[in-house]
Amino acid sequence: MLTYSFENRGSDSLYEYLYKQIKSDILEFRLAPNEKLPSKRSLAKHLNISVITVEGAYSQLLAEGYIYSQPKSGYYVSALNTTTANASEHTHRESTENAAEIFADFVGAHSEKNAFPFNTWAKLMRETMSDSTEKLMVRSPSAGVWELREAIAEHLRSFRGMDVRPEQIVVGAGTEYLYGLIIQLLGRDRCYAIEDPGYGKISRIYKSNEVECAFIPMDAQGIDPVALEKSCADILHISPSHHFPSGTVTPISRRYELLSWACSSPRKYIIEDDYDSEFRLLGKPIPPLKSIDVLGKVIYMNTFSKTLSSTIRISYMVLPEALMAEYSKRLSFYSCTVSNFDQYTLAAFIRSGQLEKHINRMRSLYRSRRDSLINSIRSQEKFPLVEIKEEDAGLHFLLRLQTELPDEEIVRRCSEAGLRVSCLSEYYRNADAPSHTLLINYSSLDSERIQDAVDRLFKSIWA
Amino acid sequence: MLTYSFENRGSDSLYEYLYKQIKSDILEFRLAPNEKLPSKRSLAKHLNISVITVEGAYSQLLAEGYIYSQPKSGYYVSALNTTTANASEHTHRESTENAAEIFADFVGAHSEKNAFPFNTWAKLMRETMSDSTEKLMVRSPSAGVWELREAIAEHLRSFRGMDVRPEQIVVGAGTEYLYGLIIQLLGRDRCYAIEDPGYGKISRIYKSNEVECAFIPMDAQGIDPVALEKSCADILHISPSHHFPSGTVTPISRRYELLSWACSSPRKYIIEDDYDSEFRLLGKPIPPLKSIDVLGKVIYMNTFSKTLSSTIRISYMVLPEALMAEYSKRLSFYSCTVSNFDQYTLAAFIRSGQLEKHINRMRSLYRSRRDSLINSIRSQEKFPLVEIKEEDAGLHFLLRLQTELPDEEIVRRCSEAGLRVSCLSEYYRNADAPSHTLLINYSSLDSERIQDAVDRLFKSIWA
Repeated sequence: MLTYSFENRGSDSLYEYLYKQIKSDILEFRLAPNEKLPSKRSLAKHLNISVITVEGAYSQLLAEGYIYSQPKSGYYVSALNTTTANASEHTHRESTENAAEIFADFVGAHSEKNAFPFNTWAKLMRETMSDSTEKLMVRSPSAGVWELREAIAEHLRSFRGMDVRPEQIVVGAGTEYLYGLIIQLLGRDRCYAIEDPGYGKISRIYKSNEVECAFIPMDAQGIDPVALEKSCADILHISPSHHFPSGTVTPISRRYELLSWACSSPRKYIIEDDYDSEFRLLGKPIPPLKSIDVLGKVIYMNTFSKTLSSTIRISYMVLPEALMAEYSKRLSFYSCTVSNFDQYTLAAFIRSGQLEKHINRMRSLYRSRRDSLINSIRSQEKFPLVEIKEEDAGLHFLLRLQTELPDEEIVRRCSEAGLRVSCLSEYYRNADAPSHTLLINYSSLDSERIQDAVDRLFKSIWA
Repeated sequence: MLTYSFENRGSDSLYEYLYKQIKSDILEFRLAPNEKLPSKRSLAKHLNISVITVEGAYSQLLAEGYIYSQPKSGYYVSALNTTTANASEHTHRESTENAAEIFADFVGAHSEKNAFPFNTWAKLMRETMSDSTEKLMVRSPSAGVWELREAIAEHLRSFRGMDVRPEQIVVGAGTEYLYGLIIQLLGRDRCYAIEDPGYGKISRIYKSNEVECAFIPMDAQGIDPVALEKSCADILHISPSHHFPSGTVTPISRRYELLSWACSSPRKYIIEDDYDSEFRLLGKPIPPLKSIDVLGKVIYMNTFSKTLSSTIRISYMVLPEALMAEYSKRLSFYSCTVSNFDQYTLAAFIRSGQLEKHINRMRSLYRSRRDSLINSIRSQEKFPLVEIKEEDAGLHFLLRLQTELPDEEIVRRCSEAGLRVSCLSEYYRNADAPSHTLLINYSSLDSERIQDAVDRLFKSIWA
């Protein structure tokens, strides 16, 4: 509890002195933004002063904006815009504010909050904690605990038709972390080729690690092999099963072409980021490039943050045998970045068949959401002015608009209508960007708002 | 369940064919090492063959070592030493084997297994899961969830006398991961100075990230400032509160000297790794360098993997305001590497006062273990031939031996006696290494084996 001595208050009244002390604690961040202050009564009792004195100090702080009150809850420290308040804090608040304004989010690719099998997960975690106390306290191997790697290998076998050994699997806290490991594994002297357009974070990670990047244009089948050949690329980083943002699925002939490129030099490798293959909505998932990689040229990556919840940070990569040997030699001194609790819980989750059940549940949830979204679009009067481009895959599709509006204006108008949208052009770097094409991600959409959101979207553009 | 068609068995008998099929599945890793095989009865039923046929196949596989049996449990696939079996698998098995042979481990710095407050942690995790479902599904800010950063700031305030704002704190899955972030933050064009002797992993991480390193010799007060000045160093990475392995505590005058070095150029920073300050066994913890850093030159780092369990991967760093602004601008696109479950559970663990309780419990446990270890050493007949060098800090001390034996021979003899020991000289790189000095880490010792382990130690050297 706040403790102040009133001995040195000089000529200040008790309430003035108390007000000044609390204010200085707020300004100097000894009291954190949004920290709850003690109730007037309890602070008065604690400091042995009257409630009226505390009331006076709080009122003054309230009037000056240093604190705010919450009905039926009490007083809280305001988040101040001082010069030292930095961007992080800013972001913290901003995200909360924005969340309130957005009616529908077609950009965020967060996993569906309510669909996470909380009770099952909690139950397995409890069981893990009561059954595996001993194991939980044994340090995980660098590449992850054996049980989880076995479970992942088994999952990949039955779900993706991949024949990989648990020994080839490296578990880590998110694919972003694993990219960093790959750079250390393959070396900083190689040139990393990235899809253009593409998922912005990938190039940011390579740039942040100060490695050379080449942006390779895409055609209707995926990475353009001629441009790839001409580039400096040693490592090709792609999502052939469902490209983001274009949605392109790379057909088998192109896949062989890319593998053939990779085989032309021992320096060359392909990183296959299979980030949303589980959510192919129709038919079977497309077999990964890795499954036809007989020469050990493909590093396969995937994440459970997508399938389970973006707040669970567990991803993995499957390394070709030779690279795994390199990893063991040079990088296995690293501790595994995922806590044992999470590793064993996930292993149990996979083994018990819950992961498969969950994926199936999510697929039908996303499928019905997509269907109602597309139906809403089709029911619009202006439907003839749009074109839906999708591949029954992943959690997003493209919407081409017949309009003269510049992309910035489209985004601005949607934003005014409470819609968060992004244009395909935003994901292009060097290649010619098609305009008037919206990226529609429906993973974060509230089903009950779909009709209204689509109405707003069409009204924004053809009002 | 294993499924084989017997159509193409040619002239093979049923049991021969089954044996070959299972063997090939094992050799080609379609059956994983240590995977349990179905019981004879159930496989026979599944394949519609007789139990005797399955028995024949299993016996053959058993005889040839492809499978092994566990009494009362069944048959399991052997882990084979094929050419493709890689170093990772090797490590996996090796670590298990070694564990059996070691009677006492004076090297491992694992946290005490049995001391982890399992029930408390499990209870808080359950509460987190039932109370905070909504929050758990909201993506963590890059630097960590606000509640945890607040709790850490509060902990640092009360425990380390540090006045830091939650906004300055970045949470990550282990200090090793955070080192990687620091390199991205400060840049790859700087020279990183490391203590010589020092904790080997630190230089491995810098090397693996291909940044220039300078190894700076230590004197009795810590880093040698003259050598530091002469080196290329921009960034100084140190543990001033308790150096590993020497145990040196850097006194205040030297600390000011190092801060003064850091202030001489805007390129210069100090990374203060406060890895085991919680375990200072006598008196108050030594205030961190960060607490006298008024110019924002110190990056403070610490980990909960040390205080709680090495299997829980949560660490954090406190960035100076200017670097935090840089982080927010350039690196906050990274997802936080710690799952929300763990972040909120740890926040509750700190807030409820459990962390402090746990640290106090661990300190008294380690203190009594150290005391009985030192008493055992003192009670040895050859005690006059050794000298204990310790600083009431951390979980290790040095033991100087009056002997002519080379260090390798000391380690070899101890190993024969079932003791895992390391010599101080192993941690030196360029600086002159003192020989005949053992590093005695008691964090992993079994209290009941201390007397016996010390007897063995003395007998190995002065038999």
